Amino acid sequence: MTREIPYKIYLEEDEIPRRWYNVRADMKNKPAPLLNPATHEPMKAEELEAVFCSELVKQELDDRNPYFDIPEQIVDFYKMYRPSPLVRAYCLEKELDTPAHIYYKFEGNNTSGSHKLNSAIAQAYYAKQQGLKGVTTETGAGQWGTALSMACAYFGLDCQVYMVKVSYEQKPFRREVMRTYGAKVTPSPSMETNVGRKINAEFPGTTGSLGCAISEAVEAAASQEGYRYVLGSVLSQVLIHQTVIGLETKRALDKYDIVPDIIIGCAGGGSNLGGLISPFAGEIVRGENNYRIIAVEPASCPSLTRGKYVYDFCDTGKVCPLAKMYTLGSGYIPAPNHAGGLRYHGMSSIVSQLYDDGILEATSVKQTDVFAAAQRFAKVEGILPAPESSHAIKVAIDEALKCKETGEAKNIVFGLTGTGYFDMVAYQKFNDGVMDDYCPTDEEIARSLAGCPVIS
Amino acid sequence: MTREIPYKIYLEEDEIPRRWYNVRADMKNKPAPLLNPATHEPMKAEELEAVFCSELVKQELDDRNPYFDIPEQIVDFYKMYRPSPLVRAYCLEKELDTPAHIYYKFEGNNTSGSHKLNSAIAQAYYAKQQGLKGVTTETGAGQWGTALSMACAYFGLDCQVYMVKVSYEQKPFRREVMRTYGAKVTPSPSMETNVGRKINAEFPGTTGSLGCAISEAVEAAASQEGYRYVLGSVLSQVLIHQTVIGLETKRALDKYDIVPDIIIGCAGGGSNLGGLISPFAGEIVRGENNYRIIAVEPASCPSLTRGKYVYDFCDTGKVCPLAKMYTLGSGYIPAPNHAGGLRYHGMSSIVSQLYDDGILEATSVKQTDVFAAAQRFAKVEGILPAPESSHAIKVAIDEALKCKETGEAKNIVFGLTGTGYFDMVAYQKFNDGVMDDYCPTDEEIARSLAGCPVIS
Repeated sequence: MTREIPYKIYLEEDEIPRRWYNVRADMKNKPAPLLNPATHEPMKAEELEAVFCSELVKQELDDRNPYFDIPEQIVDFYKMYRPSPLVRAYCLEKELDTPAHIYYKFEGNNTSGSHKLNSAIAQAYYAKQQGLKGVTTETGAGQWGTALSMACAYFGLDCQVYMVKVSYEQKPFRREVMRTYGAKVTPSPSMETNVGRKINAEFPGTTGSLGCAISEAVEAAASQEGYRYVLGSVLSQVLIHQTVIGLETKRALDKYDIVPDIIIGCAGGGSNLGGLISPFAGEIVRGENNYRIIAVEPASCPSLTRGKYVYDFCDTGKVCPLAKMYTLGSGYIPAPNHAGGLRYHGMSSIVSQLYDDGILEATSVKQTDVFAAAQRFAKVEGILPAPESSHAIKVAIDEALKCKETGEAKNIVFGLTGTGYFDMVAYQKFNDGVMDDYCPTDEEIARSLAGCPVIS
Repeated sequence: MTREIPYKIYLEEDEIPRRWYNVRADMKNKPAPLLNPATHEPMKAEELEAVFCSELVKQELDDRNPYFDIPEQIVDFYKMYRPSPLVRAYCLEKELDTPAHIYYKFEGNNTSGSHKLNSAIAQAYYAKQQGLKGVTTETGAGQWGTALSMACAYFGLDCQVYMVKVSYEQKPFRREVMRTYGAKVTPSPSMETNVGRKINAEFPGTTGSLGCAISEAVEAAASQEGYRYVLGSVLSQVLIHQTVIGLETKRALDKYDIVPDIIIGCAGGGSNLGGLISPFAGEIVRGENNYRIIAVEPASCPSLTRGKYVYDFCDTGKVCPLAKMYTLGSGYIPAPNHAGGLRYHGMSSIVSQLYDDGILEATSVKQTDVFAAAQRFAKVEGILPAPESSHAIKVAIDEALKCKETGEAKNIVFGLTGTGYFDMVAYQKFNDGVMDDYCPTDEEIARSLAGCPVIS
């Protein structure tokens, strides 16, 4: 007998995961190691510890242990906004008139407005444990910066955020949320760091990129006593913290004996996607199960679908380690589109390797199609989604409409990573019909990739 | 044996209330009837039906039936965002170092960002059932307008919103959310209605008030075929819809055998407060139980604490029925403070009567104190509260600190009606230290009340 599925599947508080899952332990082809940009040797723990918190370095380098325990204080913080609901999109199904069953894991019910808090609180915790004064970071759309500000306020840490200039200008209120939580916010590229001044001189009037902001935040951490740099995506540690999303999703589905046919996530740096799919990808690589997994990226920043899988710099200033990943080149500065969180030139090394191994597929979508899907979703599901999250909505709707044609009642699960409350400038452009659909030409991408691979 | 209380007490989907509670049925002193402003006779159903939906008129006038069934389609919509969590504020308690147990009913986890959706969906439903083309309304802070836009989009109704000009300017993104949901938004007083033109001529440069916006919306409804006017607070029907808050709160408390000592809510038009306290006030008036209930209003718009309990106009344009309520005079235009939702000159007739009967107390608080409390709460509880809601937070913190002095472990329950994502202009002023604490002088209030009572 099938139990009736509620609109929202909530787990109990004691069902919050107590361990993060490290999918690398189960991968046959391990992601390639980070390399020292000078020596081209794998980064050693002590080298990384100059920039990152020690415990986080351990997590970054460990591709053997399948689980990391979640410290009690982090679980306590999780209890303030987790478990997050797995929502059955009954109203969207009705609107689409599809036989498909659509589910979304909603991570937006916290003030940072997104899943970013899952890793922010972990990183702030380890920084506090290490006795640091504060941390520096970059932020694109501002969700990560907001999340880190909240986490730092909770543990009494100083927080310095370099915010991609285009987002800083498009989202003035994001800055105020961060300030309300006590953070210092600087538009990037700034004139406060050597790398910022250099980038400003080289590209006058640049609207910035995550790659630039990372370089500045790293420099700021290195030049202040008692500070370390923390990152909101791309790194394996972040993806691992985000597996709370996937673990809860799996548990909620299991409760109702739901087996997903398709799992969809938006892909910027890859951490939310990787966190959502890890438990499922683990089953695939272990040969236990099969699922169709789709990564969705913006047509304006198509690292998986149009980039190269090579060693590249993680940042524009070339101060960070080299990572093997799908990349558009570390100098790639996407058009000032509005899905700010999906503007990174590269991709998580775990997601890159899973993609190269054929465990997941990737597709790219146009911005106006994304906003049309967002609006359609908002009108029936009562949630105004973030532009980033709406990339996944767009493809979920497309797949549900295919089911309508074929009559298949597929189970479609997607990650709804956050809310769009701070993205109203973008929604306004869409409402006014003046939003563009810029995509880079092949020549632009080739030019940006000219220096890649940095090493082969 | 006491069960351990989780951070968030969630009810099951089938525990969503199926009936709204009409506290008037249990009140010994019934709220005074609405009067026809021309004849001073009690408003008849057929008179009200020229402006309001018929089913809502029935609810408005019925002070005998203790319960109204919630239609199935409304319950279905509720399932998208209800039951809302009752949160144990463990982190705030720790921060305050208080023996008090603090709980808050959080209504902000939906895109309208507040409790307003509870009544919006009900009013849209009845409008749709009646075969109307659309509805008109006013909005202050914008939460009500957003909620109604969402509800109308869901049922495919046209939605026309008159937004108090000061909020329209301070919250440009609110407008975009409403537009995204398909609503037409007009700053009030506008030049589109007779009453708007009149008010603009009389008070050039006015920043508007809820009273003005109501007059315009009523005129707009009356002058279009197939339209009715709907209201987001003040009316008894709205308060009754909001009793889902109180009923869920009561049920969640009962699950863990928690008896509240103090129940706190912010008071603008009175509907969220009334909705939260109705089940508890019902027990008091029936002599079954006793609770301390506190209504919190802004010092800039102190209708309960400094107004008169008399018959007054509900709107500035004097086109609506007369209501007996605590009022500052229908011409009262509060300073352009930022707690936009608490700017109404009057108060729900139910809340007014309960206050007059001594069932609840009232207090007023200064704006900067409210924002300081909001920030303190946000830093530890991970939710950025709306300025309106933060009035309740301020008093909850004060009461918890009194418990610290006396060593009492009181149970304090407050309504956290919404989130402050669209209030960042106000937070910015607070962060920058340029927020004012304007309070009206006795002379100003006396002048505004000069025409009151309209009838005695």
